[in-house]
Amino acid sequence: MDWKDLLKRRESCRVYRDQPVPRTVLDELVKEALQSPSGCNAQPWRFLIVDDPQAKKRLVEALDDDGLTGCPWGDTVPAFIVISELKATLKPKVAERYDSQKFAQMDIGMAAMTICYAAADMGLGSCMIGTFHEKKLREALGIPDEAKPRLIITLGYDGVGHPPRAKIRRTFAEACGHNHW
Amino acid sequence: MDWKDLLKRRESCRVYRDQPVPRTVLDELVKEALQSPSGCNAQPWRFLIVDDPQAKKRLVEALDDDGLTGCPWGDTVPAFIVISELKATLKPKVAERYDSQKFAQMDIGMAAMTICYAAADMGLGSCMIGTFHEKKLREALGIPDEAKPRLIITLGYDGVGHPPRAKIRRTFAEACGHNHW
Repeated sequence: MDWKDLLKRRESCRVYRDQPVPRTVLDELVKEALQSPSGCNAQPWRFLIVDDPQAKKRLVEALDDDGLTGCPWGDTVPAFIVISELKATLKPKVAERYDSQKFAQMDIGMAAMTICYAAADMGLGSCMIGTFHEKKLREALGIPDEAKPRLIITLGYDGVGHPPRAKIRRTFAEACGHNHW
Repeated sequence: MDWKDLLKRRESCRVYRDQPVPRTVLDELVKEALQSPSGCNAQPWRFLIVDDPQAKKRLVEALDDDGLTGCPWGDTVPAFIVISELKATLKPKVAERYDSQKFAQMDIGMAAMTICYAAADMGLGSCMIGTFHEKKLREALGIPDEAKPRLIITLGYDGVGHPPRAKIRRTFAEACGHNHW
């Protein structure tokens, strides 16, 4: 899909058709995410595709963080991709100066953004979920202590079928300056 | 440009033609970035377009963090976009549970990624720079204490003209699991 159309098409999708997403499509999303840049090309990320009914059930239970959930519609989601942060190996001179994880959360945001554009390109809706019960999510997917789960992306074919919504955002004038704050 | 072509075309560009980027094009990059998602739609970001020679000179001096620089070619860059993190206003129930900045760095990564795809779509090269002398950068652009500069994106027309390089990345098998770590 053309970039400008993709930019309009990409939105947070919370209503999915009851239709599985082929494993090959989910794999392709991660393959495209791997093309994203990262600080010192450290790639401090691991992706987990979750499409098995039992694994999805465990993940959905972890979407509730003691009563708080950004994804109450979790049990209707055809597939998830969970992104965890790994220890980053930066270039030696950068590692001397900065903490190893200085860029890692931005890197993960970049890869996640790529997944959502790639999903839109393949006709899929997506939504980024940052709230979850970390301990339950770790147990659900066997995420080890040395990794930190950061984002869950929900994926599936759009069940609404409406044209993309207008996005509610601050205006350009509010959010951007030229040459000085 | 079609998404798959854009994905190949987007790469870190460090050699630029000596050709200014029109202000309207730079503004459009930020307008597209503003379409990016963020936790609770908080949009915890401010963009600064830097294309004035004097402002660029001050910014370029801040690229050197006491002898460390990820951008020694800074004085050949036609324009920059600096992204700073703002205090995020999360939804009340989310704000009760999590720190206000929990999602902010990922949000900034998402917006930065969008800028780089948008740039590639408009025939521009880009490179994300995360290393800089924070105090000098703040002084150069008047970034106030309540904001945190996170990323500098360099922008210009590609001065190399070669086809996109093959990206060096971990393999899919190394970076991705299915249903369990």
